[in-house]
Amino acid sequence: MGGTSLEGSLRVGVVGVGLMGADHARRLATRIAGATLTAIADPDGDRARALADELGGVTVHDDPLALIASGEVDAVLLASPGSVHEEQLLACIEQGKKVLCEKPLTMDSESSLRVIEAERAGGRPLVQVGFMRRFDPEYMRLHELIESGRMGRTLLLHQTHRNKSVPNPDFRSEMIVRDSLVHEVDCARWLLAEEIVSIQVIGPAPTSHALAGVVDPQVTIFRMASGAVVTNEVFVNSRTGYEVRCEAVGEDGSAIIGRPWGEVYTTVADPAGGDGAWGGPIVPDYRVRFERAYDIEVQAWVDATRRGERTGPTSWDGYASTVVCTAGMESLATGQPVDVVLAPIPALP
Amino acid sequence: MGGTSLEGSLRVGVVGVGLMGADHARRLATRIAGATLTAIADPDGDRARALADELGGVTVHDDPLALIASGEVDAVLLASPGSVHEEQLLACIEQGKKVLCEKPLTMDSESSLRVIEAERAGGRPLVQVGFMRRFDPEYMRLHELIESGRMGRTLLLHQTHRNKSVPNPDFRSEMIVRDSLVHEVDCARWLLAEEIVSIQVIGPAPTSHALAGVVDPQVTIFRMASGAVVTNEVFVNSRTGYEVRCEAVGEDGSAIIGRPWGEVYTTVADPAGGDGAWGGPIVPDYRVRFERAYDIEVQAWVDATRRGERTGPTSWDGYASTVVCTAGMESLATGQPVDVVLAPIPALP
Amino acid sequence: MGGTSLEGSLRVGVVGVGLMGADHARRLATRIAGATLTAIADPDGDRARALADELGGVTVHDDPLALIASGEVDAVLLASPGSVHEEQLLACIEQGKKVLCEKPLTMDSESSLRVIEAERAGGRPLVQVGFMRRFDPEYMRLHELIESGRMGRTLLLHQTHRNKSVPNPDFRSEMIVRDSLVHEVDCARWLLAEEIVSIQVIGPAPTSHALAGVVDPQVTIFRMASGAVVTNEVFVNSRTGYEVRCEAVGEDGSAIIGRPWGEVYTTVADPAGGDGAWGGPIVPDYRVRFERAYDIEVQAWVDATRRGERTGPTSWDGYASTVVCTAGMESLATGQPVDVVLAPIPALP
Amino acid sequence: MGGTSLEGSLRVGVVGVGLMGADHARRLATRIAGATLTAIADPDGDRARALADELGGVTVHDDPLALIASGEVDAVLLASPGSVHEEQLLACIEQGKKVLCEKPLTMDSESSLRVIEAERAGGRPLVQVGFMRRFDPEYMRLHELIESGRMGRTLLLHQTHRNKSVPNPDFRSEMIVRDSLVHEVDCARWLLAEEIVSIQVIGPAPTSHALAGVVDPQVTIFRMASGAVVTNEVFVNSRTGYEVRCEAVGEDGSAIIGRPWGEVYTTVADPAGGDGAWGGPIVPDYRVRFERAYDIEVQAWVDATRRGERTGPTSWDGYASTVVCTAGMESLATGQPVDVVLAPIPALP
Repeated sequence: MGGTSLEGSLRVGVVGVGLMGADHARRLATRIAGATLTAIADPDGDRARALADELGGVTVHDDPLALIASGEVDAVLLASPGSVHEEQLLACIEQGKKVLCEKPLTMDSESSLRVIEAERAGGRPLVQVGFMRRFDPEYMRLHELIESGRMGRTLLLHQTHRNKSVPNPDFRSEMIVRDSLVHEVDCARWLLAEEIVSIQVIGPAPTSHALAGVVDPQVTIFRMASGAVVTNEVFVNSRTGYEVRCEAVGEDGSAIIGRPWGEVYTTVADPAGGDGAWGGPIVPDYRVRFERAYDIEVQAWVDATRRGERTGPTSWDGYASTVVCTAGMESLATGQPVDVVLAPIPALP
Repeated sequence: MGGTSLEGSLRVGVVGVGLMGADHARRLATRIAGATLTAIADPDGDRARALADELGGVTVHDDPLALIASGEVDAVLLASPGSVHEEQLLACIEQGKKVLCEKPLTMDSESSLRVIEAERAGGRPLVQVGFMRRFDPEYMRLHELIESGRMGRTLLLHQTHRNKSVPNPDFRSEMIVRDSLVHEVDCARWLLAEEIVSIQVIGPAPTSHALAGVVDPQVTIFRMASGAVVTNEVFVNSRTGYEVRCEAVGEDGSAIIGRPWGEVYTTVADPAGGDGAWGGPIVPDYRVRFERAYDIEVQAWVDATRRGERTGPTSWDGYASTVVCTAGMESLATGQPVDVVLAPIPALP
Repeated sequence: MGGTSLEGSLRVGVVGVGLMGADHARRLATRIAGATLTAIADPDGDRARALADELGGVTVHDDPLALIASGEVDAVLLASPGSVHEEQLLACIEQGKKVLCEKPLTMDSESSLRVIEAERAGGRPLVQVGFMRRFDPEYMRLHELIESGRMGRTLLLHQTHRNKSVPNPDFRSEMIVRDSLVHEVDCARWLLAEEIVSIQVIGPAPTSHALAGVVDPQVTIFRMASGAVVTNEVFVNSRTGYEVRCEAVGEDGSAIIGRPWGEVYTTVADPAGGDGAWGGPIVPDYRVRFERAYDIEVQAWVDATRRGERTGPTSWDGYASTVVCTAGMESLATGQPVDVVLAPIPALP
Repeated sequence: MGGTSLEGSLRVGVVGVGLMGADHARRLATRIAGATLTAIADPDGDRARALADELGGVTVHDDPLALIASGEVDAVLLASPGSVHEEQLLACIEQGKKVLCEKPLTMDSESSLRVIEAERAGGRPLVQVGFMRRFDPEYMRLHELIESGRMGRTLLLHQTHRNKSVPNPDFRSEMIVRDSLVHEVDCARWLLAEEIVSIQVIGPAPTSHALAGVVDPQVTIFRMASGAVVTNEVFVNSRTGYEVRCEAVGEDGSAIIGRPWGEVYTTVADPAGGDGAWGGPIVPDYRVRFERAYDIEVQAWVDATRRGERTGPTSWDGYASTVVCTAGMESLATGQPVDVVLAPIPALP
């Protein structure tokens, strides 16, 4: 990355411009201070060229590895499918370029370990994993409250994660663990500042709105190293909307975030003349709920990168969440608690 | 009323068994400790007899004055139209019987004064006016908070009073003042423990859901003797439901009651697949919102009466609210502040 | 009980006049329609006589069985310790007298079964168990919502139950299961209208505010016959106050009750000049939180008894909750799920 | 401003680097995409140089007019005292440079008119006034809701504006109108999309926490051109914190924004062992409450300026609010409604 300093703008390349990657590209082009979007890469060349036309001044690469190696790119944002992350992360590390990698780090714990090892060999941290909740103002405030000690030692965490529905016709129960619960895994580790030592997935009789055979909702229990317990509800066919809540219960108090009633509160008449209602709409998806968190995340990554520093979740966090989710998938099959065993490799500072 | 003591049940007669009076009769028959409903009177004999059959053991009188004079009746609950209150109250006072009189005390300030004078001549308080909000748990809690001094001296009160709609085809703007604002008048006097010295009714451009010529909503300003100011919104065709709120603003803090979100909070899916919603229904009318207040009011009246004591708003409170509303109707016509002048007659203790 | 009809008042005796029993005695004497408190019994004769003096017209019995047999008593409210319930319940059943028995029904499942059998031998239901939450307006509303089907089939229940502290120096972990969790057991069975088939108690590292060796808080999982799952947090040394919440999650929506922000909401200045605060106090204990539920419960019991009907939780409900809690205490020791096996005795209608 | 295009960064100079201006300078230097802070000017040269050192790469001017004329500056952000705005705005207009001017536009309506006329003479809009609430997400959502027509025509607005305290020992009642109420003036005009036709300031007996002679709180009534009515409470010594709320009441529903309970909600134990509390802290001041609004405002101004477009409140909005506040100060003295008369000069598009 060389001489990037606070004087100059950070030149960023985005790999993968599907829904998430295109959002990130627009964000870098229009809302992030100190960064310039210089290049994008996507296997779907038409999609990439259309976006480049929209944003202006952006080079399109067919080959993600070419973008990563390009002299026009100081740092890389990976929004490609998880299955190609390992190769692309290793390329970034080889180039000595900072990379913000959307979760999951990689698809299994072995490949995640290989990434960690390559990064360690280079001697300085390069990888940030895209657990954006750590940058959500409400989660940050909860983290702060826990850290402040005002609620005493945290004993319990109750996490709720509801999606409106899952359109994917190939959806399987394991995806709830790997793609949704993974956020709760990271939040528990981050908020409590300790590792998960066992995970148990409890499947109630599923909703009839899920595909046949899919266990949804799922209640999941984490035991933490300190003995703290985390209960999770993940329900991806809740039909109501995107609801993410977290309650921390400490020795001297508790705190809840994620209540929808923080928004505009309305009363509305019933057009049919029945009882009116108070309340408001539920946000449809994570892009609305966490838009601000993504902005703050990418700004923080750009700022730290320009200063030659690091911030946010590391490759170790990506690895640990993969290990926990792998254990969770095993528990999903058996209903029994499964121990979580992490490699004895210390993370980079 | 004679020898009524705590040992014996208070024998109560109800005059007027329309919607409100029938509610009160059922309340006395089934939910109030220490009282027995012994008699009812109503010009609509069929209605009265049907209710007597439903409740059992109740004498029906055609003539309200006969009920009032009856030896079977220790105390009277008046739920008849306001236009006959004066005659019936004077009869109760003549009989020395305690009376709980639904608002308004009487239709104008002169007749209210005559009731006060008759009661004073008898030497002991007999009349309680049915301002039920004084017995609503939320209002009681707000009153307590104000009295406690924890918020400092009260500087402002903001009152909101919305009804869903007014079905009456003869409805006039004045009725908003006399029948709805009257509750805000009593709450302001009670919560602030002082008299209203002027009233100004400000009519915005009315809702198109009101009858032609009806000024609805109305914003009304009270100035209190101490200089405190009360803002009121009364909106009787709000279409959403029955919403009653009160915010007291003191030198060192504020308090709000009447928020609908104190009830069950739900999330619901949109059957059409759109955004789900959080919130809940708005109560349709005052009978639902203040059911508990009516129970507590009548129980408190029965308890005090059995002990030979008094409680709740007095005939003076009924008179004062009538004077304020009369001034309010004048201001409604002119838009100007109108001074409120009360008679120099001290109330009974 | 004989000829008790709606015309006459139900003559009630209260056995045990400690905190709870004295509350009930005062309630019957002053707030319940259609009932007369005629007798009380307590091993502490002075306490009983002081209460009798306060309330007037009440006979004091030294022997609870004498009260139960007394001709002055149509029905009995048992607020004595659980260890003497079996004997007193059997006496009530022998006398053919209706009895409202504070929980627990008895101390173990065998004795509970004996009570059920005696009641069945008599051929008509006589026993109501004091699970007062079934009469709390918020819980009733939640029950109604679930029954209405508007949220679809219920998949999950999340229950929270916090007490401020436990003063008892002999307090043991099992008491959390038997005395606190028992309410969650009954609510789950009642709200979901089905039996619990297994229970697992998960003990996090306990709060340092609990006595040494006491597992507090406890996370408990119920599996219901339909496959629904119930998560419970019981935390009896939360230090903040009495917080009881319940969230039901259905296929098409969810509902929460028990949020403290339904009360008066205040803003207050910080006397030291720091940031002011919004919010309000947390109720200190169940007597404040459920005062209204107790009133409604006792009134409903008196009303049903006078009509020769029954209402509320039965002896079967008392038995079932005892069996679940016994299994819970076993799980508390092992951390493993324990199956709940109920006797194949049908309850009385 | 010349050739500024989306390709290049907008070079911005900040005039006045007190509390507000320094915030804006830091914002431009670190959080705004597409802008570069190139120059600052302040009469307090030490303050300016310290800030320049902190931010790096910024020229310091002693003379604001030199900054405005400088070739290093494409656009100007004015955070100087209102009394020098006229001169500085006229200089910006002469230079043809876009300017974002903190409120007030100028100190009186005559000077505001001169600014409008100069801008009109130039033929294109250059001035944006810093009414940041128009960029606050909650206010934007309320504006959207009103515009959507879902609540029907808006009939009433209830606005609340509380500050914790006013440290200024020279504070006068007029400042509440000019510096605080001015935001409510702009919100009413913006949300209802119409002019204010009269204003009446009603002074209750003031809080004892205000300086002697200062009328605080103030209740103010606006009548809008359509007949809609706006009630305002402004209370600058509320002692609790910074509370800004707005409720819009329409023919078919209502909406409220600005409730503090949208943040983290906590329960806390009372260290002294009394009742615990639920709730949370109140933000101390506008910089915390509207931080995000300022970010969005400045980003929107930079974006529009780079595109050669305009956004946000115009010089006409600045003029109109000055006229309304001047009438408000007159009403403050008399207590009577004062008509608002605007010049017949059409605004630039």
